[in-house]
Amino acid sequence: MKFIKTPVKGMCDMLPADMRLREHVLSMIKKTYATYGFMQIETPVMEHIENLTSKQGGDNEKLIFKVMKRGADLQRAIEKGDGEYADNGLRYDLTVPLARYYANNREKLPTPFKAMQLGNVWRADNPQKGRFRQFTQCDIDILGDDSSLAEIELITATASMLSQIFAEIGVTDFTVHINDRQILGAVALAAGFSEENIGSVLISLDKFDKIGLDGIRNDLLQGGYPEETVDRYLAVYRTVKEGVGIEEFCAAIPQEVLPARVSENLAEIIACVRPMLCPGVKIVFDPTLVRGMGYYTGPIFEVTIDGYNFSIAGGGRYDKMIGKFSGQNVPACGFSIGFERIVTILKDHMQGSMQLQNASAYLIGNHVSRERKAEVIAKAMELRRAGEIVTVLPMSKNVGHQIELLEAEGFTKFEKIYE
Amino acid sequence: MKFIKTPVKGMCDMLPADMRLREHVLSMIKKTYATYGFMQIETPVMEHIENLTSKQGGDNEKLIFKVMKRGADLQRAIEKGDGEYADNGLRYDLTVPLARYYANNREKLPTPFKAMQLGNVWRADNPQKGRFRQFTQCDIDILGDDSSLAEIELITATASMLSQIFAEIGVTDFTVHINDRQILGAVALAAGFSEENIGSVLISLDKFDKIGLDGIRNDLLQGGYPEETVDRYLAVYRTVKEGVGIEEFCAAIPQEVLPARVSENLAEIIACVRPMLCPGVKIVFDPTLVRGMGYYTGPIFEVTIDGYNFSIAGGGRYDKMIGKFSGQNVPACGFSIGFERIVTILKDHMQGSMQLQNASAYLIGNHVSRERKAEVIAKAMELRRAGEIVTVLPMSKNVGHQIELLEAEGFTKFEKIYE
Repeated sequence: MKFIKTPVKGMCDMLPADMRLREHVLSMIKKTYATYGFMQIETPVMEHIENLTSKQGGDNEKLIFKVMKRGADLQRAIEKGDGEYADNGLRYDLTVPLARYYANNREKLPTPFKAMQLGNVWRADNPQKGRFRQFTQCDIDILGDDSSLAEIELITATASMLSQIFAEIGVTDFTVHINDRQILGAVALAAGFSEENIGSVLISLDKFDKIGLDGIRNDLLQGGYPEETVDRYLAVYRTVKEGVGIEEFCAAIPQEVLPARVSENLAEIIACVRPMLCPGVKIVFDPTLVRGMGYYTGPIFEVTIDGYNFSIAGGGRYDKMIGKFSGQNVPACGFSIGFERIVTILKDHMQGSMQLQNASAYLIGNHVSRERKAEVIAKAMELRRAGEIVTVLPMSKNVGHQIELLEAEGFTKFEKIYE
Repeated sequence: MKFIKTPVKGMCDMLPADMRLREHVLSMIKKTYATYGFMQIETPVMEHIENLTSKQGGDNEKLIFKVMKRGADLQRAIEKGDGEYADNGLRYDLTVPLARYYANNREKLPTPFKAMQLGNVWRADNPQKGRFRQFTQCDIDILGDDSSLAEIELITATASMLSQIFAEIGVTDFTVHINDRQILGAVALAAGFSEENIGSVLISLDKFDKIGLDGIRNDLLQGGYPEETVDRYLAVYRTVKEGVGIEEFCAAIPQEVLPARVSENLAEIIACVRPMLCPGVKIVFDPTLVRGMGYYTGPIFEVTIDGYNFSIAGGGRYDKMIGKFSGQNVPACGFSIGFERIVTILKDHMQGSMQLQNASAYLIGNHVSRERKAEVIAKAMELRRAGEIVTVLPMSKNVGHQIELLEAEGFTKFEKIYE
């Protein structure tokens, strides 16, 4: 018999202090989103392998943990020798399962449906600092609403939730960046790129923060695009002023490639969201915001904390995806927060762990009588009923060390019962 | 592209009403157990396949969902052709992961350590009514306490938690059954069975509720045991009176096979627990209680609701198991509640689903101006900040049906904004 003490590669054991922080953050998320009418749902962690490899997941499809067939099915697969040993896989995000869920349960759900999901996802990525193979995602999605109301609700809910969470560590300043895939596409078309090249051009533009406009220029030229087109395209982003307004930016784009309603819609979202934000929170039009996933079709958004160079939440409109599962077109829009990043930032700022509050320990010595023991337990029960945390433990030989470890968790009151 | 709308076999999509009930029960469990000083921990859903197939899981080891190796590891496994395609598996219980966790993190944890785990487990069982391939388990365990205090804390915590949950549906009467593996073993030894046959004899006795003593007699005779021994053994259980006391029952067992401290220990547990129980809850010595898992070493216990013929919680002492992972002997005792069964019972009694409270919906018509929309959103935000549930939705063409579906979730206040 060979036992292995460590968790599987890239995954974590959560200590009590980790769990207190995670549960605290999760409960704030659930509570805030619930007031906006988002309803919590849950799907199994496993999905049919066919759904997970349907080209909706981008690069994540390469990182699937596959679950093996069992019994006769596995036997048949081995005999056939075609390598199709898996029938299921662990989900790599919460969006593909949501699309399947909505196709499966649509008639039982209100329309539009405001979904909230908090759950783990798994990716067989190379483990590195702060990136794990099992991690928690928190998504809200609105299905069946093609109006700007969906974006407005998603952004106000997420911004207000983040304000509450970060207020606890004194962080109040963050920025909601917003853009629209149709605007991004129109700029590329106007410069002379063809419709089918937009995806590849945006993959280059998405590297703006890392390689800048000159890097993007090299990237596009290496991609074989004509220099003239590339320079015409980048000129738009070179000349744009920080804090540019949507109307101003879009005025330069011909109506044939960008209908007026696209920029009007985005302007409406910003106008309705801005007055709802807590002091310190900004919403800005960000013409170079792209977001990775290929499935976005309209407005896209991201939240950054001022002073950190990564996003802590992101989302957008993906009107085509649900239809691929349900056969019926369903407009959809979602916002996903980076739960693990948020927890990491909170942990850094807290300089220590989240401790128990109002917790006491009764330590019972070796020679205490049954009657005395019963008395102590009865007293503990009374305090517990009043909501206090009370533990009753046998006293260790090294009671000093025992108390130290309990203090580390937040216990502050100790009573030693010797007799 | 082939999309499948239904969840994988034997697993469920949770609708919003399901989730409200589940979250409500989970939060009562967490809250109650926390007051007893149990600390929530979490392990990854995946474990090394070696740990899962280490003979600690009994029949569950046949039901493992195995996770395939990836990349070069998988390639090597296929070339070798030895069928070892899996490196991990989904956990089938929370006890094996706890044993690994404690071996891995022991120095960072208080001692004794009171663990609380709430998580999903997976078993590739044949799906049937009320039995799923993904289901939630809620376990509390005390590691490092060899005294009766562990059993007392586990039983009072679980009984008080169950009393609270079931009080909501007016169910107050349940029974904690308690026995000891050492008493079970002693009765078998005294009748003439050998030490190594105790396990097999107990497997027969465990069928008491289903086949009665005559069925057990057939079972044992078919197992090849001498008629005389079998009849001497069963005579003990035939003559025992309902509600027999521990002292009375154990008086007939010779001291050589049952040291007095075993029955004294069990008597102490009952004496300390009994006064702590809510009205309607009993604790009884149940000499035919066996419990399935082979790893129990001392007191075992089970909770039944009066009127239902299945248990809703069960546990016991398993002093040998942790040591197999850590190499050091660690006494351990745990209680696991049947979360899915409890949820099913609550759902049956509630005659309907758990609904939202204090929820209102603003339905916005097609031609509402941006300014009016902003006003409505601002009003919604104000109510949300006060903790109310408010959703703002575009009005559907069939607004009657839209309201019906919202009412089904618990929305009671509606405001239609046309202009």
